[in-house]
Amino acid sequence: MSQREGGESGSAADPRMRGFKTRAEVAELWNWIAATIRPLDAEEVPLFEASGRVLAAAVHAPVPVPPFDRSAMDGYALRAEETFGASAYVPAVFQCVGRSRPGQRCAAAVGVGEAVQVATGAPMPAGADAVIPVEATRRDGDRVWVSEAIPQGRHVSRRGEDLAGGDLVLPAGRLLRPQDLGVLSAVGAATVRVIRRPRVVILITGNELLAPGTLARDFQIPDTNSVMVQALVARDGGAARVVGPLPDEEPTIRAAITGHADDSDVLLVSGGSSAGPEDHVPGIIAGLGQLVAHGVALRPASPTGLGLIRQGTLPVVLLPGNPVSCLCAYDFFAGPILRRLGGRPPGWPYRCVCLPLARKLISLVGRVDYARVRIRDGQVEPLATSGASILSSVSRADGFVVIPPDREGYPAGAPVDVWCYDPHALDPPQAGQPDPPPPNPDQSSRKAHHTPLG
Amino acid sequence: MSQREGGESGSAADPRMRGFKTRAEVAELWNWIAATIRPLDAEEVPLFEASGRVLAAAVHAPVPVPPFDRSAMDGYALRAEETFGASAYVPAVFQCVGRSRPGQRCAAAVGVGEAVQVATGAPMPAGADAVIPVEATRRDGDRVWVSEAIPQGRHVSRRGEDLAGGDLVLPAGRLLRPQDLGVLSAVGAATVRVIRRPRVVILITGNELLAPGTLARDFQIPDTNSVMVQALVARDGGAARVVGPLPDEEPTIRAAITGHADDSDVLLVSGGSSAGPEDHVPGIIAGLGQLVAHGVALRPASPTGLGLIRQGTLPVVLLPGNPVSCLCAYDFFAGPILRRLGGRPPGWPYRCVCLPLARKLISLVGRVDYARVRIRDGQVEPLATSGASILSSVSRADGFVVIPPDREGYPAGAPVDVWCYDPHALDPPQAGQPDPPPPNPDQSSRKAHHTPLG
Repeated sequence: MSQREGGESGSAADPRMRGFKTRAEVAELWNWIAATIRPLDAEEVPLFEASGRVLAAAVHAPVPVPPFDRSAMDGYALRAEETFGASAYVPAVFQCVGRSRPGQRCAAAVGVGEAVQVATGAPMPAGADAVIPVEATRRDGDRVWVSEAIPQGRHVSRRGEDLAGGDLVLPAGRLLRPQDLGVLSAVGAATVRVIRRPRVVILITGNELLAPGTLARDFQIPDTNSVMVQALVARDGGAARVVGPLPDEEPTIRAAITGHADDSDVLLVSGGSSAGPEDHVPGIIAGLGQLVAHGVALRPASPTGLGLIRQGTLPVVLLPGNPVSCLCAYDFFAGPILRRLGGRPPGWPYRCVCLPLARKLISLVGRVDYARVRIRDGQVEPLATSGASILSSVSRADGFVVIPPDREGYPAGAPVDVWCYDPHALDPPQAGQPDPPPPNPDQSSRKAHHTPLG
Repeated sequence: MSQREGGESGSAADPRMRGFKTRAEVAELWNWIAATIRPLDAEEVPLFEASGRVLAAAVHAPVPVPPFDRSAMDGYALRAEETFGASAYVPAVFQCVGRSRPGQRCAAAVGVGEAVQVATGAPMPAGADAVIPVEATRRDGDRVWVSEAIPQGRHVSRRGEDLAGGDLVLPAGRLLRPQDLGVLSAVGAATVRVIRRPRVVILITGNELLAPGTLARDFQIPDTNSVMVQALVARDGGAARVVGPLPDEEPTIRAAITGHADDSDVLLVSGGSSAGPEDHVPGIIAGLGQLVAHGVALRPASPTGLGLIRQGTLPVVLLPGNPVSCLCAYDFFAGPILRRLGGRPPGWPYRCVCLPLARKLISLVGRVDYARVRIRDGQVEPLATSGASILSSVSRADGFVVIPPDREGYPAGAPVDVWCYDPHALDPPQAGQPDPPPPNPDQSSRKAHHTPLG
């Protein structure tokens, strides 16, 4: 055999029609990714577009929130000590001397025996130190009867009680939640600095491929990887452009790669990554920069590659053309790269549940296995599929089990971690489903004012 | 007291400056929502935009996938029985009589003692019934030595093995995953019928409100609910438009509601929902249709309302202006309505974990409590916040615990269900983090061809 043996850094041992003699370990590639990929730079985006983005720098409150003492209830502002001893039988009486409305300075002030009508959010009038809710009052003309004693400060929202000026509002790296946008708005942030979205070019190669969603004809089939991968990229916070399908021609693929190198942050090349005669991509990447790995001890994504071009700044993932292998290689390598570039938690965005195996799960020692499984009656059923092209298996599957390289699998009954494709498939019954918390029988008279609910 | 007592169906008892004397139960409102809200009609969208959408009708395969027998490996197609007995020491020898390439009809056929070179995805040549992977072969000119015996059918992907013609591809109601788009592409679906996105108008009311992200001035504060709610709506599959902030003027708010009734599927009105003198929204809704409930036994979202206008076809949720109450009311009522309209699972899109309480959690009997909590060292810590306006509490919180109306709370150590705002906060270490599965010491020689990984 004329094949050069691998192992020397930077050489371009060509496995075409000779196969992979050695394969990279998943673990070493993960370590390489963790050591190599750093978050992108920041950009400013409007608050309305910032949900799910990652904060590039900590935000501090330039002003206190709330910016002034205000009422937290609809009711009457008064001096708390004047309610002491008040009850439904012996109400305290106050003179209503004015009204405080939201958004306006309150002209009225509260003196002895006086109260000011306040709406929620309205400024507290001078002289008052508490708000009695309207439910605990009765009004007749300018008189207000108060049937409850309240302590000082009750139902008053103090200046700065939510955030004091200078307080840390949110730390750098925060994945922004809907309510975080509310907090940022409260401190006057109309825009926010977030990590830039990774720009991802998805290059689809394969002589046999038609445009996605085309009916198969002759010996050509529709491409499936572009639609799948662009959705994965969007899920992981990237902005994807699809190029192709391109034919398996070395100059065409090389031109597409060099043509898109300058305006992208990751290159994902689907197809042409294995050891067939038409598999030009590994050689192209080795020629343009560094082919970090080609061939991985991972089933069903063995023909996966990893490279760096553009002076070591542009990561390239060589995804197998077979759709299940492509999904597996995306999940193991492209996804973590994208999430790290975007400053996100690099781990899988799948929910993990630990459940017992219904049947034994078989694997081969020496490689990581990405085994598709179903969950039935709280047990994990391996899906019997061998082919990497059985894309419907990842639609039928509820998730996958990762079998490490030193295991031959797991026996029936063994607990395994399942990474669920649907994040909420196994949640308990909850809000909005007709399985609410039990109503309180003692409170059955608490109906809505005018509910047709019975 | 001059107040009319509530309870009569359809009447318009006005609680302004009198307060809620009775409140609807969360459970009965959930039942009302489940009984009233039905999924919207369908629309056709391009496959590239269908991720995360909900399939409106089942999809069947019009053609088999794959559409022809093809090779699943790079290697040589041959007759399996001719490899029987082959080994590294006694290889079987074949004559290579041609080549099958992806996308093209294969002209060559395999006879006795013959093999055809095949690439992954290429059509199987006539006469062959198995593919020997290139790794198990050696080639010299037209001769191919095969060092392994393989059974019939090995590494052949049969016509229809993924999906037979007529097979169910995906059922109606499916929340489309990235890989589902791949499967739909494989059966030639360029577009897909999905449930229409709910069109949501978010109406912000309040005299005290400035545009979001504005610095507070005088007694005005920036609105926080529009940015928060539009992000929640997007998360739940809706398309939101924000109107406002509008002043607390009855004619202005009424005009905005009627003006947006015809081109929306849900109306969310923030503010003006309570019992203050400026709270016009409940009366407007009662006048335009039906105020199903006003006042809910839910803390901190008691001033929440639910209505139906436009001849009973347009649900309206009256959200409290206080931001934490607004989030709580959205989570309890608006979210389930939106998800049901969109055909999604109606339950909370939060992950639920069951963990013990670090301290006791106190609630009042007679209402549902939405208690914000943190998770520290595997224990649940209640966040000590009373104010519904403390928006930073829902940024500091990891999630919430729902305390049913018949409970006074839970003692320290009691296990409680926490609904986590971040879906993956508590996942175990996983792919792409530097905590990979243990490498197999027996396989330490399995390096990539030319990896700089060491």
